[in-house]
Formats: sequence, structure tokens, C-alpha cells
Amino acid sequence: MNHNIDRDLFRRIQDRVAIVGIGHLPFAKDIGRPISDTAVEAIQLALEDAGLRNDELDGMSMFEMESTHEVAIARRLGVRNLQWWDKISYGGGASAATLMHAAAAVACGLATTVACHRARNRGAKTARPWAQERELVKDDKALHVPWGLIRPVDVIGMWAHRHMHEFGTKREHFGNVAIAARKHANNNPYAMMRGRPLDMQTYLSGRVIGYPLTLYDCCLETDGALACIVTSVERARDLRNVPVLIHSLAQASGPNPVHLANYNNTPTMETTSVFCAQLLWERSALKPIDMDCAQIYDAFTPLVITGLEDYGFCKRGEGGPFTEGGRIELGGALPVLTSGGGLSEAYVHGFNLILEGVRQLRGTSVNQVPNCKSTLVTGASGVATSAVVLRTE
Amino acid sequence: MNHNIDRDLFRRIQDRVAIVGIGHLPFAKDIGRPISDTAVEAIQLALEDAGLRNDELDGMSMFEMESTHEVAIARRLGVRNLQWWDKISYGGGASAATLMHAAAAVACGLATTVACHRARNRGAKTARPWAQERELVKDDKALHVPWGLIRPVDVIGMWAHRHMHEFGTKREHFGNVAIAARKHANNNPYAMMRGRPLDMQTYLSGRVIGYPLTLYDCCLETDGALACIVTSVERARDLRNVPVLIHSLAQASGPNPVHLANYNNTPTMETTSVFCAQLLWERSALKPIDMDCAQIYDAFTPLVITGLEDYGFCKRGEGGPFTEGGRIELGGALPVLTSGGGLSEAYVHGFNLILEGVRQLRGTSVNQVPNCKSTLVTGASGVATSAVVLRTE
Repeated sequence: MNHNIDRDLFRRIQDRVAIVGIGHLPFAKDIGRPISDTAVEAIQLALEDAGLRNDELDGMSMFEMESTHEVAIARRLGVRNLQWWDKISYGGGASAATLMHAAAAVACGLATTVACHRARNRGAKTARPWAQERELVKDDKALHVPWGLIRPVDVIGMWAHRHMHEFGTKREHFGNVAIAARKHANNNPYAMMRGRPLDMQTYLSGRVIGYPLTLYDCCLETDGALACIVTSVERARDLRNVPVLIHSLAQASGPNPVHLANYNNTPTMETTSVFCAQLLWERSALKPIDMDCAQIYDAFTPLVITGLEDYGFCKRGEGGPFTEGGRIELGGALPVLTSGGGLSEAYVHGFNLILEGVRQLRGTSVNQVPNCKSTLVTGASGVATSAVVLRTE
Repeated sequence: MNHNIDRDLFRRIQDRVAIVGIGHLPFAKDIGRPISDTAVEAIQLALEDAGLRNDELDGMSMFEMESTHEVAIARRLGVRNLQWWDKISYGGGASAATLMHAAAAVACGLATTVACHRARNRGAKTARPWAQERELVKDDKALHVPWGLIRPVDVIGMWAHRHMHEFGTKREHFGNVAIAARKHANNNPYAMMRGRPLDMQTYLSGRVIGYPLTLYDCCLETDGALACIVTSVERARDLRNVPVLIHSLAQASGPNPVHLANYNNTPTMETTSVFCAQLLWERSALKPIDMDCAQIYDAFTPLVITGLEDYGFCKRGEGGPFTEGGRIELGGALPVLTSGGGLSEAYVHGFNLILEGVRQLRGTSVNQVPNCKSTLVTGASGVATSAVVLRTE
């Protein structure tokens, strides 16, 4: 690997930039309102949470997927002058990266108060992704789409299958992830799956969506709007909430990333997240063992198993057994997806994982990990991705 | 205004980050090759110019308009791990902003070697923009598109007309801009208008495109691919070329920007560029008077007149007379668009202006300003925009 690390320069961000406000609208299958409205309102809620005025906002770093122009949002918020804006690609790979870019802006004096957000309306709510490849299939997708690996679940099914084959991972291990997320969601009044418990028998009898993955291995489909506000730690100390410090950050593509489909890489199961994890921990004074909980991107349950491996909580191939005995549930050694995650709270490309990370460090989660001092939040595995380590001051 | 400036933090970028490589393919009406190829080749040329290996590249900041994925480019270049990538919106407003984001990445240790580029293929080459508003006209465009201000030239015509009305600006002033750009292009072997001189009589008899603007007030339509490479000044000193330092940078939207159509603002003719200029000069130790030449975004000639005003080379309303007596031509007090610009070299959303700024500071322009030590490069007026001050070490 060829990571170019300059720790001295990175200290300009490390523990010097903080998340000071979070906000979101209720999650829904159909939010029933224009996405431009929900984006504005989520950011406004986050500013209110921080105790900041709308016109103090001067930066925006967002997902490339966003459909509402920065200036359209800024105009309605009454922003006087945006001084920094950008968009970051690769779907759920962009979640923590929005914080990274916001932090760089703050650290270089290019903006003081940056909003990161995700507003998702699923439009016509049709759910036939195999009918949605309407244009020329190009780039890396041409390597697998013509062979029937069209939906994300098709490709992640191959990841799961290879993991089972290589390491003896069992469906029950994937089930442990789904059940942990669901248990956490059951305590979360905002979770779409609140009040709908899941046990292993039900999990194992789920209908197949993309072998070996069943209904309960797949994330929800959610309309949502969420935002957080990033500023300097000096300014954060004067604001309403306990500052949540950005300790380490990384974006990484790895070499030759293939869209979701790097299930056949060598070394075995090497994903984009491996490269992101290496950068993240090289920049960090904390280690995986220091994480009090983890919000690991969970579009599908196998991504959590491989994520535990990629980010160094266990060795390659041990992600399955790691989930046993309640280890990833509240009360276990490493509670994972404490809001319910994409599997059982809401699937909004991982931005809810950032908000839950902030709540854990504020001590305000509905599934609060006692004395939580640091947490990892990751973006999507399988695409060029990102991750962040958050900590208390 | 509410500019939030922290000069101490900005010094992490100021004169600490440099442009070390530039490259571009020949400009053409129809480049005849896939845009994914031309993007890769332009970046490779810029890396070669810098004396860097492809696999040293670890970051990309690009226009939102780019159609080729970062990882598709990185894969073909043999990049091992992208550590930073983002996209910046608002068409030609993004040009200098790509440098700003690259510089922030370098200054925070998030990447060491960042490519900024613009690869433009105009596709079917149909040129009927009034037939291209096929979707719902939303946001600020709904304020003017239904009234017939559809093409950019329609709206900039309104700017020009108001400038003539308010300040007595004459068509000959716009002509001075077109003629200066053309003179410079005539010396530039890469310029699309090389070998095609333009005099005032020809200018004044040009056919009307959007009153009062005629053919010669409008930029070219060009396929092109251009790139530059950004790294730290310490590293730049070990490389092949004289480092071109990034001295000041800004992005700005101003309050309530209206897409191209803020011709009726008060104070008179206040554009997004006014807010960008204020930030840029507040961060800068240099002033407009220190600029040895200027590359001012020139989708249409009136944008150069207002740009000279916005960026402080003259007072509001004096941009027309400023162009008189050869002042903006090579040999004048402030040579403008020394490569020929968008009007006569190539229209590639202003990225050619960055490359020409670099050449002036290296001393390698075909229209070299003697002893050029600093230059301004601006993005598009009328949209949320950006600008950069470059200087020699």
C-alpha cells in the first residue's frame, strides 16, 4: 500500500474540529414532501440543536446523490454567503467523507460552520432495480451486471457466500447482526422497525432475496432527512451541546475498486474498507479496542461481519463468531448499530449512523453505552468509502 | 456581508500549496474520443509535466459536471489509493474552487498529490439550448426562464444592457475585450481562433445572438481536456518546474444568488463575484494593483467588464473605459486573457485560464507578461463562484 500520511498536518483536524448539532425528520416509507423542503428543515434542526443561527452557516459538504442545489438550500435558510461547498461520490461511501471535507474547510479557515446532510426521497417508490439499468453499463459495472449481478443484494450475496465458503461463516452469524440491529431499533422511537421484534427462527425462515441473503439481511428502504453541523472545537466549547470531537478520518478507494463486486479479491475478501481502515487507524491515537461501540455500515448484514474484520475488531474470517453471545448487542463488548442502523432504524446511506455516534458520545442514545468515550462510524464497503472516529473531549 | 475569515488558519494554505504540473489535449470542436480517455490523458500529461509518477496521485477535486467517475480515472492511471475526492458545483463557478479543495486536502495531510481537471465533450453537438429545458424549471431559474431568458446569452445580454444603461458602457468596450482575447489567441498555437484576426469593424457587424450581444461577444464551444497537479510547496521545490504558489483562494455564493440572472440587483450590478472578491482579497497579502495580468472568466465579453469591477481593478461602472487604449492587451497595464480565454482559445469552463495563469508565472506563455509575479484567475460570474491568486515564490 502507498498511504501518504502526514500526521503533523492531520493534527490540524484531529480533535480540533467538532460536531455540535444534529437533526433529522421522522423516517418514513414515503415522507410525502419535496426533498428540497426536507433538506432545509433537517439542516435547520441541526443548527437549532447547536444553538446557532441559520445565517451563521457558511459551508456545505454533501453526498453527490443530493438533488437539491446548495444555493437553493442556503437561500431558504437565509445564509448570507456560502464560502465552501462540495459533493462526494459513491453512495453510502460518502457518509463520513462529508465530515472529512467539512473538517478540512474549518481547519484551513475556509468556513466556520459547515452543514453535512443527507435528504433522501425515493421518488416513485418502484423497487425493481433490475429494470433500472437503462443506460449503457460502463466502467467496472460492465464486469458483473451482464452476468446477472444487478441489484446490490446480488453482489453482496456473492460476498456472503464466499465468506461462508472460506471461513465457515453461518447464516446464524448474519442473523446475529440483523437481530442486534432490531433489538436496538425496538427501543428507538424513530426506528421504522420499532415494535417489530425479530428472533432467529423468523430470521432463518425469511424469504430469499439474493441467495444466501434473505429479507432480514437487507436494509430498509427509507425516505429521510438528516444533518449535522461541524465547527472548530474552540467555538464548540461555547455552544449548547457537549462537543463531539472528530479524532480521525479517512477516505479511500483502494487499488482498482470494482463497484460492490470485489468479492473475489485476493488477499481474501479485501475490500475498499481495508484501505480506509488502515489510513484511519494510522491517523488515530485510538485503536479498535478503544471503541466503546461501532456504527458499521449495514446495507446488508454481511457488510457488518466484514466491516468488523476490515476495521480491525477481529481477524479476517472471524467476523462471524465475533457476533456470537450477544457481543455486538447493548451490554456486549462492542455494541454495533445502536440505533438500529440501516437494517432496522432507517436506510439513509449511513447518515443515521453518524447521528447515533454523536448521541452515544453526548450520552443521549436510547441505547446508551455507559460512559461511551469513542466510537467508529463507517461508510459503505465495496465502493470507494470513508470512516470517522468520534470521541468526547 | 458576513465573511468569516480566519487569516491564521488560511495561512496553512497561503503560499504553502503549489501547482506543479499542467497538461491538456489539443482543443477541438469535436475531439472525437471518449471523455473518459481524454480525462485520463490530461491528468497523465499534467503528472508528466510535474515529473511525478501516476501512482503518486492520491487525490482528485473536480467539477461536478464531470461525467467520468474518480475511480474509473484512478484505475486507468494505476493509482493505488485515492485518499481525497470531491466535486464542485455551478459550472464555470467551480474552476478555481477545484484548486481550493485540493489545497485544503494537502494542507490537512489528507492527500499529497491532487489532480484538478476538466474534460468536456459536448456530446451530440446540437446547439439549441432553448430546446434543452426539458424538465421542470425549478428553483431560481423559474424566475426568468418562463420569460424567455433561457440561454445564458439571453441573461448576460440583460447584464450588458443594464451596464450600458447605468454607466454609458458602449459596444466598443465589449469589443475591446473580444479583440484583446483574439489578439492573444492569434499567438497561441492551441487556440481555436489562431490565425483568425478580429478588428472593431468586424466585431461591430457581428450578427446578434442575444441583444446587445453578437457572435463575437460569445465564447467558443469546445471539446477539451485539461488538468493540473497540486501539492505542498516543500515537495514542489524538489520537482521539475518552478512552483506556482496558491496565495489566496475563495468560493462564494453571496446572498440569494439567482442563476446568472442577478442583473437587476442593488447595489447596482452586484454579482456573486463581488462576494468572492471580498473574501479573496481579505485573505490575500497582494492587492489588485499587484496583479501583473488577469485571467477573468469570459463566457461573454460583459463578464470581463464586470469582472474587472468586481475584483477591484476599477470602480463599478468604469469597466468599459478600463478596456480602452490597449490597457487589457499584452503590453498594457493589465493584460487580460493572455491565452485567448474562453472567447478565443477554448471554452472549457475556465480551466484553460488556470493553465495560462501557471504558464505566466513559469514564464512560458506565448504571450508572456515580462517578469510576471502574480496573477488572478476567476470563475464564472453570476453563479456561486470561485477565484484564485497565484504567485511566484
